[in-house]
Amino acid sequence: MSSLPAGPVPSPTPLAAVRAGVPEHGESPKYFQIKQKIDAVLDELGPGAPLPTERQFAERFGVSRMTVRQAIRELRLEGRVQRSGRSSVAGQPKLVQSLTLASYTEGVRRQGRLPGRQLITFERLAAGSALAAGLRIEAGAPVFHLERLLLADEERVGLESTYLSATRFPSLMDEFDPATSLYAHLRASGVVFADADERIETVLASPREVQLIGTSPALPMLLLNRVTRDRRGRPVECVRSLYRGDRFSFTAHLTPDEA
Amino acid sequence: MSSLPAGPVPSPTPLAAVRAGVPEHGESPKYFQIKQKIDAVLDELGPGAPLPTERQFAERFGVSRMTVRQAIRELRLEGRVQRSGRSSVAGQPKLVQSLTLASYTEGVRRQGRLPGRQLITFERLAAGSALAAGLRIEAGAPVFHLERLLLADEERVGLESTYLSATRFPSLMDEFDPATSLYAHLRASGVVFADADERIETVLASPREVQLIGTSPALPMLLLNRVTRDRRGRPVECVRSLYRGDRFSFTAHLTPDEA
Repeated sequence: MSSLPAGPVPSPTPLAAVRAGVPEHGESPKYFQIKQKIDAVLDELGPGAPLPTERQFAERFGVSRMTVRQAIRELRLEGRVQRSGRSSVAGQPKLVQSLTLASYTEGVRRQGRLPGRQLITFERLAAGSALAAGLRIEAGAPVFHLERLLLADEERVGLESTYLSATRFPSLMDEFDPATSLYAHLRASGVVFADADERIETVLASPREVQLIGTSPALPMLLLNRVTRDRRGRPVECVRSLYRGDRFSFTAHLTPDEA
Repeated sequence: MSSLPAGPVPSPTPLAAVRAGVPEHGESPKYFQIKQKIDAVLDELGPGAPLPTERQFAERFGVSRMTVRQAIRELRLEGRVQRSGRSSVAGQPKLVQSLTLASYTEGVRRQGRLPGRQLITFERLAAGSALAAGLRIEAGAPVFHLERLLLADEERVGLESTYLSATRFPSLMDEFDPATSLYAHLRASGVVFADADERIETVLASPREVQLIGTSPALPMLLLNRVTRDRRGRPVECVRSLYRGDRFSFTAHLTPDEA
C-alpha cells in the first residue's frame, strides 16, 4: 500500500483519505490509531470477508477490548464494517447514486444490485403549511402520503416518503399499486417530469426510523428533500428520502453556473 | 404550530419532518420525546436565542438532567443547538450551498455570510496511486497540496484539501497567495473550468479534523470529493472538502438524465 495521499479521488475507503499524507497535529487518541490499523486490515481482507474477533484484534495490537470496540463502532457507522447475519464482515463499498431525475430503482439497478421497495404507509392527509407551499396547494388541502422502505439486495437501506396532491391525482389510491414504480404510473397518467430541486444534508435517524430501517441508533443518515416539477413548472411531488449514511454516497455532474 | 406533515419541503428544522404526521410504531424512548419537546421550544425561541438550562428543562418536563442532556446532545449534532461563547443558543438554519462549479467563497457570500479561508498546509508531495489516477498523472509525480480551513462569519465550518499537478503549475507555490482565490489565480493562468464530478457522503470527523475545525468528536460531517476539468477534459484539481454536518446542506438542480 502506498503512503502517499489517496484523498481527493472518490474512493470506497473514506478513512484512507483522512489517514494518508496529512501531518498529524499532536498524537491521535489510541482508539483512532487502532481504527486506522483495523481499516488497513479491512483493505487486505476485501469486502465480505469475516472480521477477526475483538479479542484477536486486542491481542494483535496490544490494547484493551474496549479500545477495539470503540474503533469498530466508528468503522461500523461509516460502513467499513457491516453485519452479515450474526457476524461482522468487511463492508461493501458504498452504493453510488447519481443526483438525477432517475428513480431510486433505476439508480440501484445500474450498479448491478437488486432494488426493492416495501410499503409502510399509504394514507390521505391534510397538507401542513410547509408541504402546501412545496406542492403549491392550499394549506389543509388533501394529499396522499406514500411511505416505503428502500431495499438493495433485500437489505433495508432507506425510507422514502412521497407526497402528492390528492386533488390532482384523485384516483391514486385506487389505481396505483405501491409494489410498482410510481414514476411509471404518473407518466402513464400524462405527467412529464421536467426538473427538480434537491437538498441533501446529514441527520440522525429517529428511533422509529432506526426500527423501520434496522440501523444502529443515531447512525448518521443522508436526508434528501426533493420537489419534482412538470413541464409547466408545477410541482408534482415532494419527496423526503432518508438513506443509510454507511451505505450510500451521491454524485453530481457539475457544469458552469449560469447565474 | 400545525400538526400536519412538514416533511418533504426543504426546511431549517429537519426534526420537524421526522416528527410530524407519521404514526409511531410503539413508544419513543423518553430522551427522544424530550428532544421533540425541546425542538418545539427552539422553534419558539428563534435562532440565536439563549437556551434554558438543563435543570430548567428537567424541571419543566419532569425528567432527569441526564435525559435532557442526551436530547440536547443530538440537537447539537444536528445543528439545532449551537454554542455561542460559553452558552448554548438555538441554532441558525444550515448554510445552503449549491452543487455548482462556483467556489465556496461565492456560495457563502450569496447567503449574506462572510466567507474566509485560513491556510493550514501548503506542501509538495509525490502523488499516490489514487490521486495520480484522479489527476491523470504518473504515480509518484509531484503535486501541490493546499489545505485550508473554511470560515463563515469567522466560524470554522470546514476543511478543504486541494491537489494540483506541480508539473502543470510549477510556479504555484511562488506565485499564488493562499489568502486569495485559487480559482481566480488559475483562471489568470489561462485555465478555463469546464465541468466537474462531485461525490458527497457522510463521514465522522477524525481527531485531527475535530481539532482543526473545533467540532465535537464524532460529529457527522459531509465529505465532498471533486475532480474539476478544463475545456479539453483534463483534470485541473482534485479537491477533498469536509463540511460540518450541523452547519451545511447542499442543493442540486436536477434535469432529465441524458443516458
